[in-house]
Amino acid sequence: MDVLEAIYTRRSVRDFTCELVTPEQVQEILRAGSWAPSGLNNQPWRFVVVRSEGKRRELAGLTKYRRIIEGASVAIAVFCDREAMYNDTKDHQGMGACLQNMLLASHGLGLGAVWLGEILNRSAEVNVALELPTRYELMAVLAVGHPASRNQRSKRKGMEELLLKEC
Amino acid sequence: MDVLEAIYTRRSVRDFTCELVTPEQVQEILRAGSWAPSGLNNQPWRFVVVRSEGKRRELAGLTKYRRIIEGASVAIAVFCDREAMYNDTKDHQGMGACLQNMLLASHGLGLGAVWLGEILNRSAEVNVALELPTRYELMAVLAVGHPASRNQRSKRKGMEELLLKEC
Repeated sequence: MDVLEAIYTRRSVRDFTCELVTPEQVQEILRAGSWAPSGLNNQPWRFVVVRSEGKRRELAGLTKYRRIIEGASVAIAVFCDREAMYNDTKDHQGMGACLQNMLLASHGLGLGAVWLGEILNRSAEVNVALELPTRYELMAVLAVGHPASRNQRSKRKGMEELLLKEC
Repeated sequence: MDVLEAIYTRRSVRDFTCELVTPEQVQEILRAGSWAPSGLNNQPWRFVVVRSEGKRRELAGLTKYRRIIEGASVAIAVFCDREAMYNDTKDHQGMGACLQNMLLASHGLGLGAVWLGEILNRSAEVNVALELPTRYELMAVLAVGHPASRNQRSKRKGMEELLLKEC
């Protein structure tokens, strides 16, 4: 899939079929995330792949989007390693670049994914559930699976609102 | 260009030929940025396209990467609109997704670009130079042009370091 087409046709996918995501597909999604740019090339991203039904249910219990995580073939919890960080704003931006690569890769592989951020309200409990020290700061959970439907609509502001000036 | 190929072959391009980036190319890069995901779909990104030599020189004077901005056909200053923001971490992540879309689009168009973050040290002066109120928080400047060379090497950590666990 062409990169521009991927950027424009990617949607947040929240409903999945029961078809499984393969380990190779998960590896490709993680690899794509790892090729994001980061300040000083510090690569602060760390991943936990949550595939078992038990652990997915535990995670699901920590967000109001429970249904999405339960219905996905795999959930990928994405963390920022505090020991690798150098600047909050820039590291969080880099994490966003990483997450976007993962979403685009999922879409390019014919899968669907959604970026779940609300679960950050209970990030401490996520670390406990995944037995991770506080060194790892939860950034988002991606739910990934085979889309139950496609071509969902989405809207963006017009360029006249986004482009402040040209000089 | 395939989306995965774009993700893996994108590099930070800091040396440019004198060939110009067209207004249509700039529009495509901005449009790609605007299709990033954002929390609550708040789309906090705002753009200033800096093409004139005078303004580029002014911007260039505010970073130690002066040469890169002076040598680029166009600089795109990317801001976060504080009035659209709802959560610093999530908005900065969304801005990173937007910037990554812009870098990938540049690469997909056969152009080269680099994400400049060091200029944030002088963000207040950037706002003054571009006559923008403090409502707009500088996130990064992208320098964009035609690459003087390609296939630059880059490295990433191995998956054994990035994948903390599978469960």
